[in-house]
Order: sequence, then C-alpha cells, then structure tokens
Amino acid sequence: MKCKKCGETAALDLRRHNAAFCSPHFIEFFRKQVREAIRHYRMFEPDDTVMVAVSGGKDSLALWDVLIEEGYRTCGVYLDLGIFDYSVESRAKCEAFAAARGQTLVIERVAEAVGAPIPVVQKATRRPTCSACGLSKRYLINRAALTHGYTVAATGHNLDDEAATLFGSVMHWQTDALSRQAPMLPSTHPKLIRRVKPLYRLSERETAAYAFLRGIDYIVEECPFARGATSLAHKDVLNRMEEASPGAKHNFLFGFLDKARAAFEAAESVTLLECASCGQVTTGEICAFCKLADQVKRHTAP
Amino acid sequence: MKCKKCGETAALDLRRHNAAFCSPHFIEFFRKQVREAIRHYRMFEPDDTVMVAVSGGKDSLALWDVLIEEGYRTCGVYLDLGIFDYSVESRAKCEAFAAARGQTLVIERVAEAVGAPIPVVQKATRRPTCSACGLSKRYLINRAALTHGYTVAATGHNLDDEAATLFGSVMHWQTDALSRQAPMLPSTHPKLIRRVKPLYRLSERETAAYAFLRGIDYIVEECPFARGATSLAHKDVLNRMEEASPGAKHNFLFGFLDKARAAFEAAESVTLLECASCGQVTTGEICAFCKLADQVKRHTAP
Repeated sequence: MKCKKCGETAALDLRRHNAAFCSPHFIEFFRKQVREAIRHYRMFEPDDTVMVAVSGGKDSLALWDVLIEEGYRTCGVYLDLGIFDYSVESRAKCEAFAAARGQTLVIERVAEAVGAPIPVVQKATRRPTCSACGLSKRYLINRAALTHGYTVAATGHNLDDEAATLFGSVMHWQTDALSRQAPMLPSTHPKLIRRVKPLYRLSERETAAYAFLRGIDYIVEECPFARGATSLAHKDVLNRMEEASPGAKHNFLFGFLDKARAAFEAAESVTLLECASCGQVTTGEICAFCKLADQVKRHTAP
Repeated sequence: MKCKKCGETAALDLRRHNAAFCSPHFIEFFRKQVREAIRHYRMFEPDDTVMVAVSGGKDSLALWDVLIEEGYRTCGVYLDLGIFDYSVESRAKCEAFAAARGQTLVIERVAEAVGAPIPVVQKATRRPTCSACGLSKRYLINRAALTHGYTVAATGHNLDDEAATLFGSVMHWQTDALSRQAPMLPSTHPKLIRRVKPLYRLSERETAAYAFLRGIDYIVEECPFARGATSLAHKDVLNRMEEASPGAKHNFLFGFLDKARAAFEAAESVTLLECASCGQVTTGEICAFCKLADQVKRHTAP
C-alpha cells in the first residue's frame, strides 16, 4: 500500500476514503479533517477561546494537540470523576500533556460538586451510571467555561461515538436527543456555552493512529463502568456493518446530519430558564444536576 | 408457562408482551392484533374488497386466513416470478389454500408482463435482484387490483420485515423511503390502490406459529435469490438486539411510526402522473416498470 500523496509506503489504510497515507501525510489528513469540521459548522474563529474537555484518552488529547498546533487559544478541563485508579491515571496523563506543552489545565472534582464521587453517585440514583456521569460532565464543563471566561467548549467525540449515540437515539426514536445531536450546538442562552465536536469526521481508529504517531501518552483502559454499556453494544453492531460495507458508519452519521436532522430540530424547541438553586440553565425550575446532587446528599447523609 | 387468559399450559411465550398463550388464545391474540392494525390505520371497512398478495409463505397465507375468518370479501393474487422450483411449489401452496377455502386466486405471470422471468430480469438490469422483483410486484399487484375492481391491496409484511426495511432506510437516511414506510398508504390517485400491511404488529415467529396452529400448508424455503440480501443482514442485527432486549424491534418500528414518520412525510411530496406507455402512475414520464421491461426486451432481443 502506497501513500496517496507521496507514493511512499503507507502507514495507514483508510478503507472508507479508499486511501492510504504515510505518517506525515496521515497527520496532515487528520488536521485537514479537523479544519474542515471547524469551517463547515463554524465551530469557532481565531479570536475564540476554546476549553477542551480532556479525559486522558486518545480522542480528547488528540483534539487538544491539533487545536494547539493550529494556533488556537485553548485550555484543558479535566473532570475528576473519582473512579479509583482509572481517575488517578487519567488525570496524570492530562497533567503531563498540559505541562509538556505549557498549557493550562483546569481541574474540576465531581466529588466536590455533586457531593460524592461517581461510584457513590451511581448508588444514589436510579439513572444508569453513564447517564449520571454524562449529566455531571456537561454541567461542569459548561460551568468551568463560564467561570474561566472561555467562549467555546470542545469535546473529543469521534465518528464512532457520534454514530453509536445516533444509533441509540434512533433505535428508540428519541426525538429530543436526535434534535440535539450535532457537531456544533450554538449558545442559546448567555449561560450556555457553545459546544463543538471537531473530531466528528474522524474514526476511533484514526484518532488512535494520530495519538500514536504524535507520541501522545494516553490512558488506554476504558472507564470500568463502561463495561456492558449499551453504547458499546451499539458500536459493535456498527463495526460489523462497517466491516461488511466500509463507509457505513460515515454514511449513517453524515446522512443524518445532511438529510434528516433538520426535520427533528424543527419539531423540538425549548425555553431555557435559570435554575432556582445554582443559576445555570435548565428547562425546569431546578436543574437536573442540582436534583442529582440533592439525591446524593440524601443518600450519603448519616 | 401458563396461558395468560385461561391458565392452561401455554403453547407460545411472547417475551416482548410479557405474556404466554395456549393455542386457542394465541389465535385469538393474533386476530386481535390484526383487527387493531386495521382499526388504528383505518385500513379498510366491511364494504371494501381486499386483494391479498400471496407468495405461498407463512405471512401472506396467515393474513389471508385471518381476513377470511374475519368475514372480509377477499381474493388472492399470486405473482409467478418464474424462479424455478421455488415458484412452482409456492404457486401450488397458494392454489391449494384458495381451493380449500373456495376463494378466488388471480395469477399474474412476471414473465408475461416484464418479458422474462426474474432470473433473466436479474441479468438484464443493474438493479439488485430484490429491487427489480419488488418493483415488479408493486406494479403488478396494483394493476391486478385495478383490473379486478378491488379497493385495497394487502401484503403480509410482518413486524420483522417492516423493522428491517426501516433499519435499511435509516442506515442510509433515505428520506423518501422513510416517508413511504407506513402500515397504510392511502390512494393518492385514481389509478393507485390503497396498500395495507395488517400484520405489521406481529413478528415473524408469531405468523409462523399462527400458520402452524391453523394447519396452513406453506412453503418454508426462502426465495433462492434472497440469500445474502442486505435485508437478511439487517434482520440479523435486529434479532441480536431483540435477544438482548425483548421489544427492541417493536419499539424501533412503533417509535418511528408514532414519533418520527410525520417529520419525513412533511418533507416529501410528489405529484403523480400517468405513464405515457402503460397508463399506470409514475412520477416521471415513463414508469420504472416500463423502463425495466424495456431493458429486459433489449437484453433478450436476438
């Protein structure tokens, strides 16, 4: 296999693009895809300040790396979920990454904000583990960006993540989730930061290759609570379909974004209010995060 | 396992309904589901005349059986696809079924209408085999219903069929196919017969059980051209999801019908014209069936 650009021996074969690249040209390809994502969805401009939510995994660190290389003003935000060794190690990866590049890393402790670390939160709520954790992350990332004056919050969701989420929403026709699934969610309230996913055009395999080729030291283990998660079962289904027909995942996600999403967006419109307890945005009186924190408080009370 | 209705030993366990039934109560349950389908989508009234498209398989013969038992005025239409022994045997099953019940069976020969049997059509067109065959079936069923003065055309598509079709349309976000996927498609032109799928609430396993319990002699073999069809791969995926979470297929199809279909319907609207060649409905000048017949003619010309 030869590099499509220079004819040298290829390091990576991208079946769905019917292309192969050597290491330098793969890195170029990868960054071009991120630039195209930013351009296509007008994710941010050079004068924006971007807070990158980093987990210590390959995706979010690869994203932060690209944004730094592209010259954007960024910082990282790490959410300490308090998940035993997994959190200790993933935090160390983020700190080392930030230190080596002279970047700021903001640390938010879930245990402090919600009242207990995720393993305890899990027991206090009837929500599935990943659901309570995801809620906490969205809340804390938004709050951290507001507090530190960043204009955009970026996450490392890749093509596989987005396709799996879409698959889950479609299997249940969760029209509200479908209306919210997009590579860019604009700020619709002064207290709601614009959210972007600049890696939505790149597969999990590609972000892993980029992180490897760039020498990024990331945590390889998955979160221990993710085992058996439906999202992993959905990724499995999609991987099998991709195997049978390269590009299946890409077509599924991009077809939705290009042809179907607008239909759902039109049907859903919400009015954002400010939570009576914390002041962050909510559609009700008390936001879901404050309700969760209250549940945790009652659960852990002596 | 006990029958939910009478407490006798159950013959069938319906996990997604969290119920089990003895034979007589399963038959009652099955017919009730068909009645509910007819009622919910206003498929037809007692004064309608229903042409049932029968293939000789369990679904279409089970459907015809229910409609006869429910007292509707029906006839069957069998499309002879000219697929070797498969067609010979499946036709014999339909003829025996109709004869035993004193019902009329209309026979349409694809070879006569298109100019060649399906195995030859397959070679004359670039369409996938099932696509050319499906096109011919839709055309000939509509034409037969018009010719013989029936007001409704009914097909035996079950829950598994409908979920698999939906899955395929969603994987590619074929918005035109999504807008047309419904248990009832009204007549939108004098030459287009209303089409209904009264078994959409019942799974493949349930129609097989019904046919068995009613002593219906049906052809068990699948069409030899269906091997490797994408629709079977999609059924596979859905069966695995159903296994992991009973009701998954039902929720996928019903969620679409209840919450999402309208969004696509609104986006698609077509003007129906009459084909300049055969006079049947088309969105263009010449209908797809006449184009197919023309392709076959050129292919088989000496």
